[in-house]
Amino acid sequence: MEKPILHIVKIGGKLINDPHQLDQFLGRFAAIKGPKILIHGGGRKATELAAQLGLETKMIHGRRITDAKTLEVAVMVYAGLLNKTIIAKLQHLDINALGLTGADANVIQAHKRKNTEVDFGYVGDIDHINFSPVKKLIDMGITPVLCAITHDLKGQLLNTNADTMAARIAIASISQFEPRLSFCFEYPGVLKNANHPGQIYEEISKSSFDQMIKENIVSAGMIPKLSNGFDAAGHGIPTRICGIDNLTDEKKATSLCM
Amino acid sequence: MEKPILHIVKIGGKLINDPHQLDQFLGRFAAIKGPKILIHGGGRKATELAAQLGLETKMIHGRRITDAKTLEVAVMVYAGLLNKTIIAKLQHLDINALGLTGADANVIQAHKRKNTEVDFGYVGDIDHINFSPVKKLIDMGITPVLCAITHDLKGQLLNTNADTMAARIAIASISQFEPRLSFCFEYPGVLKNANHPGQIYEEISKSSFDQMIKENIVSAGMIPKLSNGFDAAGHGIPTRICGIDNLTDEKKATSLCM
Repeated sequence: MEKPILHIVKIGGKLINDPHQLDQFLGRFAAIKGPKILIHGGGRKATELAAQLGLETKMIHGRRITDAKTLEVAVMVYAGLLNKTIIAKLQHLDINALGLTGADANVIQAHKRKNTEVDFGYVGDIDHINFSPVKKLIDMGITPVLCAITHDLKGQLLNTNADTMAARIAIASISQFEPRLSFCFEYPGVLKNANHPGQIYEEISKSSFDQMIKENIVSAGMIPKLSNGFDAAGHGIPTRICGIDNLTDEKKATSLCM
Repeated sequence: MEKPILHIVKIGGKLINDPHQLDQFLGRFAAIKGPKILIHGGGRKATELAAQLGLETKMIHGRRITDAKTLEVAVMVYAGLLNKTIIAKLQHLDINALGLTGADANVIQAHKRKNTEVDFGYVGDIDHINFSPVKKLIDMGITPVLCAITHDLKGQLLNTNADTMAARIAIASISQFEPRLSFCFEYPGVLKNANHPGQIYEEISKSSFDQMIKENIVSAGMIPKLSNGFDAAGHGIPTRICGIDNLTDEKKATSLCM
């Protein structure tokens, strides 16, 4: 039997922080036919709230450290404000959305990242996706909206990369669906030249990506997104990097191929 | 066919704000056999965060006014921090919990309270409980955990009284279950004398409650809780006011009867 298509869309932090762009995105997302899942983080809003609360953003080697207070802020912003704002807006657009962290229905189990030289704090690396409750929600006509928080099944919430979450959910869905993965961000695809946002790559192969990293011509921020994308593409999942305008236009955007 | 018993427990703000008492409560709640629902608000933590953010708590006639910023704080604290902390702890206790606002799966639709002489702001009065998705979650072996946020189906989140939510959910569940409603707070029941917390009423009838209000011998804070309790009791739902220690002990606590 043919498996149904499942659209999995990850929305980036910059789009989510701008109410106008968020509304535009949600309108396009709502128009996608058939089963779908939305995955979001929400970096800047959490940074703003942390600053308002007088918490220092601790960075080591360019990576954010999530201490207990920073985790609280992430949970409040991702699982509270952003997730529920999105849910209410999708309900208004006639999409029966339901918000989840990885702790809800134990959908994503993670472990606190092992300390090597750096203690990243309450950052979770994913152990296991429990896709069965997600499938049941979809069967109920529900659109799951996941935010970048997981748990360790020992009572600890953990901050987790939303790009990784999207790729892992897509891979876990393969037994039930034909997933299509889109990373939607502020540009229509991977830019050929960061100073000239007009031109995007139509396609990037894994070998050319590896070459781009070697030659240092891919921006630091794009590397984790593309790595996660290639993780999904490696499992045969059609994976693309797109913007709001080409979210539902298969032709434009950057496709990842193996 | 006999309908299964459904335990609906509302936990009060003072218990939820104390990590030790919250753990104690969740241990007792987890021990309840069969289908169950937890409902929570979380007043004080939201007040604390609002103060940290420099928001003034606006009160008119002793009632809190929820402006846009205060609503954001309520959503962050109730749906984010408290709800997800509870979910992670329940998962650790082997309860497959899933957190919901009224917006998730459109479980509770409300409208912004009409302005009479006072504009209460983003406060929602419940129009409709959509019990069907809650029933489906329970059938999946999930324990729904609802927080005191609803929506108006037009994209607006609303702050809603958790006691009212508990009573209305209990009433809406009657077609599928035999609900048992418990309001769990910091005392083992309704105190006979607020200055001597030892003695509680074993039972309060609707007529004696009306008399107590007239004689001004029931504390202002208890009136909405008891009114909501009698709303459920009036539908034939066994309803009690209890503490943590007697949550699962039917004999002690204060029963409401018509």
